[in-house]
Formats: sequence, structure tokens, C-alpha cells
Amino acid sequence: MQTTNENISYGGRQLVLTHDSEACKCEMKFSVFLPPQAETKPCPVLYYLSGLTCSHANVTEKGEFRRAAAEHGIIIVCPDTSPRGEGVADEDVYFFGSGAGFYVDATEAPFSENYNMYSYVTKELPALIAKEFNADMSRQSITGHSMGGHGAMVCALNNPDTYKSVSAFAPICAPSGTDWGNNAFTKYLGSDENIWRSYDTVALIEDGNKVPEIFVDQGTSDEFLETGIRVNLLEAACKEKGIKLTLRMQEGYDHSYYFISSFMADHIAWHAKRLG
Amino acid sequence: MQTTNENISYGGRQLVLTHDSEACKCEMKFSVFLPPQAETKPCPVLYYLSGLTCSHANVTEKGEFRRAAAEHGIIIVCPDTSPRGEGVADEDVYFFGSGAGFYVDATEAPFSENYNMYSYVTKELPALIAKEFNADMSRQSITGHSMGGHGAMVCALNNPDTYKSVSAFAPICAPSGTDWGNNAFTKYLGSDENIWRSYDTVALIEDGNKVPEIFVDQGTSDEFLETGIRVNLLEAACKEKGIKLTLRMQEGYDHSYYFISSFMADHIAWHAKRLG
Repeated sequence: MQTTNENISYGGRQLVLTHDSEACKCEMKFSVFLPPQAETKPCPVLYYLSGLTCSHANVTEKGEFRRAAAEHGIIIVCPDTSPRGEGVADEDVYFFGSGAGFYVDATEAPFSENYNMYSYVTKELPALIAKEFNADMSRQSITGHSMGGHGAMVCALNNPDTYKSVSAFAPICAPSGTDWGNNAFTKYLGSDENIWRSYDTVALIEDGNKVPEIFVDQGTSDEFLETGIRVNLLEAACKEKGIKLTLRMQEGYDHSYYFISSFMADHIAWHAKRLG
Repeated sequence: MQTTNENISYGGRQLVLTHDSEACKCEMKFSVFLPPQAETKPCPVLYYLSGLTCSHANVTEKGEFRRAAAEHGIIIVCPDTSPRGEGVADEDVYFFGSGAGFYVDATEAPFSENYNMYSYVTKELPALIAKEFNADMSRQSITGHSMGGHGAMVCALNNPDTYKSVSAFAPICAPSGTDWGNNAFTKYLGSDENIWRSYDTVALIEDGNKVPEIFVDQGTSDEFLETGIRVNLLEAACKEKGIKLTLRMQEGYDHSYYFISSFMADHIAWHAKRLG
């Protein structure tokens, strides 16, 4: 693992790191914020999964998470959204391939070679964090935005004992049935829609997967609300299956980091409470 | 004036605007954050002047000023660092021309045609803000980073009745005598170094210009501290002339927005107190 950037911020250390990934068979880049408390004691970890087109950099520069992370003593880990680079299969669109791994383990060639973001995020990256930093791995939580909100909820619903809590900003709630999701799942996972269900939040909940609660912020002026996000389907599934959903419809907010940053501190405080 | 971007953030409105500038004789772009309080009452204004290579965008995306601005009810105005565009004289370096206006009114051809950032920032832009927004122009303050910290102090020292307070992040304190400053001042202002003095903070203080106090944050690991910033000269001049300087040397911090954002809320709170 190599540190490519290190900046002191809010009394902690903001790092950008690269490493050769086993899961993705390419060099992967991610950022880690180590709060000042990590100098002296193991700190809990919050993963933030980013949305379509993003890398670790967007949230690291524009997410405004460091103040609250330093206050609560939480390590913030921000992975990339896909494998990248020469030799990694890709298509020249923003909603599939590079920047759009959808946090699945692909089964279909040529994508299955590198596009294993589910294993990367749930296994390889946590193992790295455990090894390299002063992290208390018994206290992990996960959040994300848009495609990354989908990723966060899918990771939590499939691994309810791993994550203490899950939240999301404007998450894609039911990718099966959206243009983005159908396209990505077909190419990554093949045409058997039953296989898609383990990577679809609403389907996972319908199929009986459970977490105690989910916290979601959603802008009312989000251009993707009706066609991509479909938070109404999440609401219905949570109600049906008895999952406590705290859904805040934020008046006038859009899908951007101006929205995310406005409520980032609330999410970190919410996770901090559950991380103990 | 045209609004090119509008995003709701922290309950306020983050705008990006363009207009034809009289002072700079080209289209100029700037950002304005209107806190929620501006919906119902005139709010004070804090200008943030950016550093070399930046536009309005860097601080607008990475400065983390909106939370504190919304809390204190302050309008934040972030201009560009120079005129730009076709027909605007420029050199292909980062430290002069586009992105490097140094907040002077140039007297030397060809730069005198467009490079009038001092008039733009102290007169034209405030007039626009007064006309277009719910601003209390009797309550204005100014801050900035690096070249913009130089700009903020020069604007305040030349107009002590206009600005209620002035602060800076890692400001260029005495541009005359640095490589950047000598190059820029010679090309913008000619070779008579006496003329440079009205755009040089330390020289202005030596010549008797006064403000009641200056607040500066400076990283100890800032690569430009010794050769560009020279905060020791500001300290000496303030001591000599009885200006109260609150200088915080911030251990391990560099020159980046990871530094600026860490202390932005402190600066806004400091100005808020003085803006009343």
C-alpha cells in the first residue's frame, strides 16, 4: 500500500492510498480520514460509498465529513466506485463500467475479471483498514450516495452482523427496474433476474433480509427521484417488513454534494450513536 | 447578471453568477452564498478572495463555509482571481495573468486594459451585491487565502471604513521582494517600487495605514511560508505600528483547502462578532 497524498485537516490526517487489489485485479485508490483520536486509541470505521461517475476524490474534497468525524472520533473510508485502468473492461458511458461498478461481484465476462466491488468493499478493504490503521473493526458502519447508497444498503442487508448501522443519501433503492440498473445488472450478472435480487435493496428486504433501521436523506428537487431513486419503494418495503426507516424529504435539495454536505454531520452523528 | 448555477445548501442558496464587468472589460464569474436569514432581512457580507490559480469554484466547493455562514447569517461572496477569456492578455504561467490578478489595478499595457481586480473587488462587485441581494452594505468584512489573503489585507488597509474586519489564511504578506510579487508588480504596475507600496500589506502598514486588528491562520508545514508568505514581516510591522495581530501557527497544516476548511468556521465566527 502506498500513500499518495497526506494532508492534516481538522486535527486529523486525510490520506489517499493505492494498493494492488486482489478482488479487482488492478490498482485501486481510496481515501481514509484518521481523526485525532486514532493517535491514541482504536476508532470505529464509517465507509462512504460514492455514486455514479465519482471516485474517492469527490466526497473527500466536497463531502464536508472531517469536522464531524474529528468530533466523534470516527475513521472515514472512501473507496472508488469501480476498478479502473488499462486492461479493465469498460464502456464509454457514465452509467456503466468505469465509475459505475454498482458494488456487485460480476459473473459475466469480460466484467467478472475486475468488477468485484462487493467483495472489495465488504472484505478486502476492511482487511486492509484493520491491518494498516488504528481501527476497531468490531465497530463498522456504512453509508453512501446514489449508487453508493444502494451499495451501502446492499452491503448492510447482506451482512447485518458486520455493520452496526446503515444510512444513505438519495440512494438507488430498487435498481432492478431502472434503466441504469437493468443495463448494469444484465451486463455484470447476466439475464437471470433472481440473481439480481441479492444486489437490490427492495428485493433483499422483500426476501426477508433485515437490519434494525435505515436512515435516508432525500432532496425533493432531485432530478433522479422518480426514475432512479424510487425511495417510495423503499418506504413500502420497510413498512411491510418492519424495518424502521427514518426518511427525511429535504425541501428544495438536489442530487449534488451541496445536498450531501448539508446533512453529512447529521449522518455521522447518527452512526456515532450506534457505533457506541 | 445571469445565474449559471443554483443549489440549495445548509438551508440557503449557493449561486454562481456571471456579468459583464466594467472594471475588467470582460465577463466575470463569482459565487454568492445567501444564508437562510437573507430571505427575511438584510445580512452582512463577507468577501473571500482566492489564491493563485483558483477561480470562485475552489472555495465554493472545498472551503466548507456554508455551515458557519448559515449559522451566523452572513452572505459569502467569492470572486474570481483575475479577468479571463479571449482578448484578455495572459502569460502561460500559473503565477501571473489568468488566475493571478494580485488584486491590483494595472497601469501597464497590455494588462491595464483588463487587470483591474482592485476596483472590481472594492467597488464594482459590492455595488452589484447591494443591488441584487438582501445585503446590509454597512456591514462588510473581507478575508482570503494566499494571494487572496494579500488582497484582503490590502483592500482593508486602503479602505478601513469600508470593512468591519479583515482576516486571512496563509496570506502573502509582503509581495514586493518575493519572486511572484516582483514579477507581477513589475508587469502590472511598472518598475517604480513606490507605486507597489499601496498593494503591499507590510509596506502599507509601514506607511501608516491602519486597521484595528488582523486575524491570520498559518500552517507550519506550508511550503510557501518562508519564500512567499513571510508572515514574520507582518508580525514585525503590526508590532511596530500597534496593529493587533492574532496569528495562529497551526502545527502540521499545509497551504491547501484541507487547511483552510479546518479553520473556516473560526474565521466566520470571528467576523460575525465584528459585523454585529
